Parts: sequence; C-alpha cells; structure tokens
Amino acid sequence: MSAPVSAAGRLTVVGLGPGPAEMMTGEALAAVAGASDLFGYGPYLARLALGEGQVAHASDNREELGRAGAALRLAAEGREVAMVSGGDPGVFAMAAAVCEAVEAGPAAWRAVELAVVPGVTAMLAVAARVGAPLGHDFCALSLSDNLKPWEVVEARLRAATGAGFVLAFYNPVSRARPWQLGRAFEVLREVLPGEVVVVFGRAVGRADEAVRVVPLAEAAAGMADMATCVIVGSRETRLVERPGREALVYTPRSLGAER
Amino acid sequence: MSAPVSAAGRLTVVGLGPGPAEMMTGEALAAVAGASDLFGYGPYLARLALGEGQVAHASDNREELGRAGAALRLAAEGREVAMVSGGDPGVFAMAAAVCEAVEAGPAAWRAVELAVVPGVTAMLAVAARVGAPLGHDFCALSLSDNLKPWEVVEARLRAATGAGFVLAFYNPVSRARPWQLGRAFEVLREVLPGEVVVVFGRAVGRADEAVRVVPLAEAAAGMADMATCVIVGSRETRLVERPGREALVYTPRSLGAER
Repeated sequence: MSAPVSAAGRLTVVGLGPGPAEMMTGEALAAVAGASDLFGYGPYLARLALGEGQVAHASDNREELGRAGAALRLAAEGREVAMVSGGDPGVFAMAAAVCEAVEAGPAAWRAVELAVVPGVTAMLAVAARVGAPLGHDFCALSLSDNLKPWEVVEARLRAATGAGFVLAFYNPVSRARPWQLGRAFEVLREVLPGEVVVVFGRAVGRADEAVRVVPLAEAAAGMADMATCVIVGSRETRLVERPGREALVYTPRSLGAER
Repeated sequence: MSAPVSAAGRLTVVGLGPGPAEMMTGEALAAVAGASDLFGYGPYLARLALGEGQVAHASDNREELGRAGAALRLAAEGREVAMVSGGDPGVFAMAAAVCEAVEAGPAAWRAVELAVVPGVTAMLAVAARVGAPLGHDFCALSLSDNLKPWEVVEARLRAATGAGFVLAFYNPVSRARPWQLGRAFEVLREVLPGEVVVVFGRAVGRADEAVRVVPLAEAAAGMADMATCVIVGSRETRLVERPGREALVYTPRSLGAER
C-alpha cells in the first residue's frame, strides 16, 4: 500500500478540454497540479507538464473501467488522485466509468471524496470554429456500437432529425468501426435534404487541427477519424458566405425566423 | 466614429463559463484582457475586472440582436471588441445572434474578423456536480417559446425521450414564461416512469449555488428559476447512494449494461 497523503483521499475527474493548455480552465489546471497520482489515457497525460513527485499511471484508451477502479483504489488509500479526460469528463468520457466503478466496487469506494471538473467538450470547440451550429436545440450522440446496438443508433438518428434537432457525433469512426459513420449519413440522407450543412472538426486547438464544411450530399466517412467530432445541421442551419473568409455556419435561435 | 485600434478590427465572442473566474479558460481570460470594448449583459460584464481604458457596453439580456449589431459596428471601425456570454457562447447564447446580425447586416460586417472562444456550458457544470448524468446520448433543449412554438417543444420532448436520450433544459422558466417547465414535466410523466432522476442545478460555481435531485414524479416548476439548468435522466440513469455523501447520478456508457 502507498503511504497516505491525506486522511480522506480524493478522486478528481478532470476535463482537459480539446487539447491546448489555454483551453483548460483554471480549476482543471489546479486539479492537475495538486494531484499526487494521475491516471488517464497515455496521450492525454503526455500533454501535461507534471512536477517532481507526481506519479503518472498511463493506460490504454479502452481500459476505462479498469482504470477507474485503479484510481478509486488509490484514492481510498488516502492519495490525492486525478483522472484526466479529454474534453469534458461527463460527455462520453471518464466520469461515467468512475461512477460505474463506484456502484460496482467495494463500500470503501463510496467513501472516497469524488469531484468532477468540467471542461470544453469537443462539439463546443468544433462549433466555435465555424460560428454557431449548436445555436438551437441539439443532440449529442455516440456512434459507437460497442456500447449499444446499432439499431438504437439508427432509431435515435431518425427520432432526433425528425424532430428538428442538430446532431453532434462523438466516436464517429475507429479502426474497429469503419462503416458506422457512412451508414449514419445514408440514414440522414433519407430524411434530410442534401444541402444540410455538415461540419467535420478534427483536433481543434491542436497543431493538426482540420475543419471542413460540406453539404450532407457529399459527406463521407473518410472525412473523419477518431479525433473528429461531426456536427450535422438541421434544415434551419445557415451558411453565410464571406468574401476572403471562411463561411459562417449557424443555426438561428428562432425556428422559422424571417430572414 | 471611434479611433481605429487596429487596421482590421475584430469581434471575439467569449464564453465566460458558469460564473467564477477559475471556471474560465485561459483563452477566454486573454480575450477579455485584450479587448478595447466589451459588450454583454450587465451582470456578466460586472463579473470581470476590467483595466483602465477598457470600455464596457452593458445591455439588457433581451436585446441580443441589437447588442450584436452594435459590437459588429465597432469592430468594423477597427476596434478590438469582445462580446461576453455566460457558459458557452454557442449554446443558446450570443454566438448565433452575432452570426444572424452578420447575415442580415451591411457587407462591412462580413469583413470583420470573427472568433468564438468556447466555454463550459451550464449543463456540463451541473452534470459535474452530481456525477455523470450526461454520460450517454443526450439532447439540449431550450424551453423558451419566445423563439419557437410550444407545440415544437412538446414534440421534441416526446421524440427525444421516446428514443432514450437524456435531456438538458436551458431557459426552463422566467417571469414571462411561468408554466412551460411544469407542462414539460407533465408531458414527460406521460412517457417516462416517475422514478426517473431529475437534477436542478442553479448558479453552479457561484456563491448562491443550489443543486437538487428529485424523482420525476416530484419534479415541479418551482424548483427552477432563470439561473437553473434542469437535467432529466433516461430510464437508464442511475442513483448511487453513498453513506455520508450526496448520491451520485450517472447514465451508464452502455445501454442495458449488466450491473
């Protein structure tokens, strides 16, 4: 067992935002600086400048529940533990995995002081780059069928677009899930006009950032990778051309507003 | 006309997050510090410690389009203008209003360099306080019927809950809209069990923060005010009791996961 750092022990799940330090909140920076032990997916931990004496416990990005348990175990021993997460930890990220581990784990884990520090989640960063595509009602949807049947994904796509929501897709594609995004675009083309605006936002704020805006008719799975968040506009979403500048994409606050 | 500060002129729409400075990003702090002129709803501007020479243009919270136009006019004259917004500017806030003003306004406004700095939006801050209720697919929905017919709100509530989304309500109630939230709970009680978890998160991060978790059967409009974001769980959302601590609320990453 490690030496106790504090009597109570604490686990803070920290949202790092999209990538660069200037897109982190002060609260997140302080939580990282104050931790004795940091858990997380290797590349996220690698972004942080850790001090001497801070222990980094890097893991694979698929071992979420195991990682959550390891962090809770150390926190229950009295360490000051941080679990880092890209974007916001509450949106398709580590906070739910930690809560699942608390529910399934030993009673001592329920005594751990648990805090979640929110961050800028990917869809907000992507939206900001092009204007305000999430300016009206929207849904956030993971396209991964590791965690739910694909039929549920399709039913949700149809329900959300039928009701006029803008959509933001997380986990649009991975090596193990190559066809899901293409199939999602097929479903959307059955119910939405081809002119509807689609935004592919990759690695926003990082050196390899790439943002692309295309009509739904031309949207293809190859335009996304694991680091991409995809926003699909509604029938109301507008494209505003600007001479010498990128077009703005926004969804008006009013439904059916006169323009 | 004001004296030009730079040849180009720029308008940055800045997300201040839920309230306290430590929940702002470094990028947002820098955008505020670098502005010659700041526009925004009075109470948001009042949160900021502005330097000498920075001009604050406070306005009423209902004058969004007029405020956007005034900011664009000053930016087009060459000033370094910031428009501050609570939470994230892209979620039911100022970024869409600015884009609308650009589309409707004179050609000179399309030449303004426009940037949006994302922030922590209310639903993320509220979710973080209780665990991870937004850990699976969710929708963000404004309950204001100033900007869309109430029938559309009800149709979206039914479509989203029918498809299993968690819901986050923005603008749940105001003096001019006293009955909408109560009616929304009535609609939800027709389609969801009374045990579904509802979270009322008010003024998260501020001195008057108040967070309350109740079953849908007991949820009432009087539990919210204008500063509240309401999260309505799905049938999957879990409540984890913890001796001596607040219960955790989370939505599992897996649909129908064994527990």
